[in-house]
Amino acid sequence: MKKVNLHEKFALFNDYWSPKIVGELNGQQVKIAKVKGEFVWHDHANEDELFMVMKGELEIHLKTEVITLIEGEIYIVPKGVEHKPIATEECWILLFEPKQIAHTGNVQSNLTKTEEEWV
Amino acid sequence: MKKVNLHEKFALFNDYWSPKIVGELNGQQVKIAKVKGEFVWHDHANEDELFMVMKGELEIHLKTEVITLIEGEIYIVPKGVEHKPIATEECWILLFEPKQIAHTGNVQSNLTKTEEEWV
Repeated sequence: MKKVNLHEKFALFNDYWSPKIVGELNGQQVKIAKVKGEFVWHDHANEDELFMVMKGELEIHLKTEVITLIEGEIYIVPKGVEHKPIATEECWILLFEPKQIAHTGNVQSNLTKTEEEWV
Repeated sequence: MKKVNLHEKFALFNDYWSPKIVGELNGQQVKIAKVKGEFVWHDHANEDELFMVMKGELEIHLKTEVITLIEGEIYIVPKGVEHKPIATEECWILLFEPKQIAHTGNVQSNLTKTEEEWV
């Protein structure tokens, strides 16, 4: 494989809430996404999901608290935990999660992408 | 779990080539390390290993080429591929790899840490 420059990869797309795959290892995928606005409440029954903020600020709403992440911060949502990401302004994130996870988890929404692409 | 601020975590240690665990998900661990100088040639028979540079510059020497990573760049070393990381100046990296991988892989070296710690 070739190395991945995240800044170059982020420059290749502008759609929100549509994760792009940039790497794969050990059955897991590394994805990047630009997000803005509110996502949907959902959970992943069998997969933990890592969020890392690369630029901007992301709120991860849980049923019991709100985690606010800025650049250089990571949060891992455990499997089965309902969450709803919200970004007031455009935010760039990196995701780490098992291959072929549905990004809206148990919820089918108009934000659901059935096939995620490499960028 | 709590969120992880990588800058705060990097401030907690100064030893080189001694990865610290900062997160765990789906049987994988997220680690950070400060590195400087040459590591040893090694491979991991069954595990792919992700390197992300957070600060500075890292060379990943492979038998066939040298991959040079700067901040914001990622490289995944596939399982079984011999590699030797080298950092001329201090470099901060994030690693993503299966839990309980030996960081010197098939090689026992004076750099080998038998137990890695959370930070």
